[in-house]
Amino acid sequence: MSADKSQEVLTLIPLRGVPLVQPGDDLPGIIIHALAESNTALQPRDVLILAQKIVSKAEGRIVDLKTVTPSTRAVALAHATAKDPRVVELILAESTEILRQRPGAIIVAHRLGYVLANAGIDMSNVGPDGEERALLLPADPDRSCRELRERLRERTGADAAVLVIDSFGRAWRNGTVGTAIGVSGFPALADLRGKLDLFGRPLQITEVGLADELAAAASLLMGQAAEGAPVVLARGVPYERRESGIQELLRPKAQDLFR
Amino acid sequence: MSADKSQEVLTLIPLRGVPLVQPGDDLPGIIIHALAESNTALQPRDVLILAQKIVSKAEGRIVDLKTVTPSTRAVALAHATAKDPRVVELILAESTEILRQRPGAIIVAHRLGYVLANAGIDMSNVGPDGEERALLLPADPDRSCRELRERLRERTGADAAVLVIDSFGRAWRNGTVGTAIGVSGFPALADLRGKLDLFGRPLQITEVGLADELAAAASLLMGQAAEGAPVVLARGVPYERRESGIQELLRPKAQDLFR
Repeated sequence: MSADKSQEVLTLIPLRGVPLVQPGDDLPGIIIHALAESNTALQPRDVLILAQKIVSKAEGRIVDLKTVTPSTRAVALAHATAKDPRVVELILAESTEILRQRPGAIIVAHRLGYVLANAGIDMSNVGPDGEERALLLPADPDRSCRELRERLRERTGADAAVLVIDSFGRAWRNGTVGTAIGVSGFPALADLRGKLDLFGRPLQITEVGLADELAAAASLLMGQAAEGAPVVLARGVPYERRESGIQELLRPKAQDLFR
Repeated sequence: MSADKSQEVLTLIPLRGVPLVQPGDDLPGIIIHALAESNTALQPRDVLILAQKIVSKAEGRIVDLKTVTPSTRAVALAHATAKDPRVVELILAESTEILRQRPGAIIVAHRLGYVLANAGIDMSNVGPDGEERALLLPADPDRSCRELRERLRERTGADAAVLVIDSFGRAWRNGTVGTAIGVSGFPALADLRGKLDLFGRPLQITEVGLADELAAAASLLMGQAAEGAPVVLARGVPYERRESGIQELLRPKAQDLFR
């Protein structure tokens, strides 16, 4: 493969025909339908990239804000950040640590280990009925990926890789970028230790955030607005198939210079 | 375009036939040759993504370490970080501020505004002769992009967009990701303020780091090792053509919660 690597083309296909997903919906069935609508079929080295929102919705990770009673701590933090106290209550419940706060955003360490704003809790695109509902991240995005991958393998015969991604803000740079929150069958981190450069010297860069790079690529096609495409098929990604988990991408707090 | 957006496919093509670039080389000519070798021709909405290394090399941003005399400050910092004092001298010269340091890495604010490790100075892939040479970032990557774009427009008739990218580490997450350091003809940041979600509500995410997402996508194909492809052609990226600059992506220090 290495000799031909420079000839390989990477294609990202936003799948057509993905409906508005509801709690309990059959996500594998929706994807198989969307693949057919997009005039393609799953191939073994394909990677399916799913927006967090449709996974969370299918898994019913929706909270009616009427049912949330904010704690004293949530009320105080909501006041300081100009946020809804009920949403802040959910942010606190989903987090292990508050890193920073400013009006509109609370940067936390999520219970799953990610550092992100507002614990990834989303108020948009939840329901058309005007009810105030919050959408939490999937309970275990790696598991969501593994299960979806297995259902797709059973029903199509193709053992494709699966990523779940969200849009994260970053330190130091403006704008969100697509970022992986769950992975199965794809290396979250590519380990290049021992590889050599063009002149036979060990590489200076030894670890590449491969799943995050693919998440960012897919995000280019997902869009944030009404025309969004929540499932993207990536074909031709160079990667070494192995089991992996999103933990590979999460720098332990003790090794993090910016926490 | 919006109705058909979900049908658009994004193709990333690693160009064949890019030689080892030397100082003074004709980068536009090299790219035109590589496009032909890759059986394609430039189209107006294409985006060419170039690895920083070949741009820096063509621009002669190479420093022979024998010519560098480290300052007392550089010697002390080199001792603390287990780095070559001459490289540390160059890092200090390229930076406006040291944010953090640990053995092997000095995280700085580069004079161009990026926060990155070791001021982006690279020791690998510089020369085959065993000489110790450092490769600096281009003097003005936005200008590099503008000039390359203009030369390509003159010689091909196609006004393609151009990005220069490098691999950056991040706060909180392991692994490097492709990150934009220069841009021309492509929006560094996509501003979605005023856009609506599927239910007609204003979007929660209002700024997307579009050039960084595309940089990450191209990085998937560039590779870090011997088989690397330093020029990637992106075709089918949805974007609004406008003038831009990398400054859009750089969060001012006063607004940065993590500096």
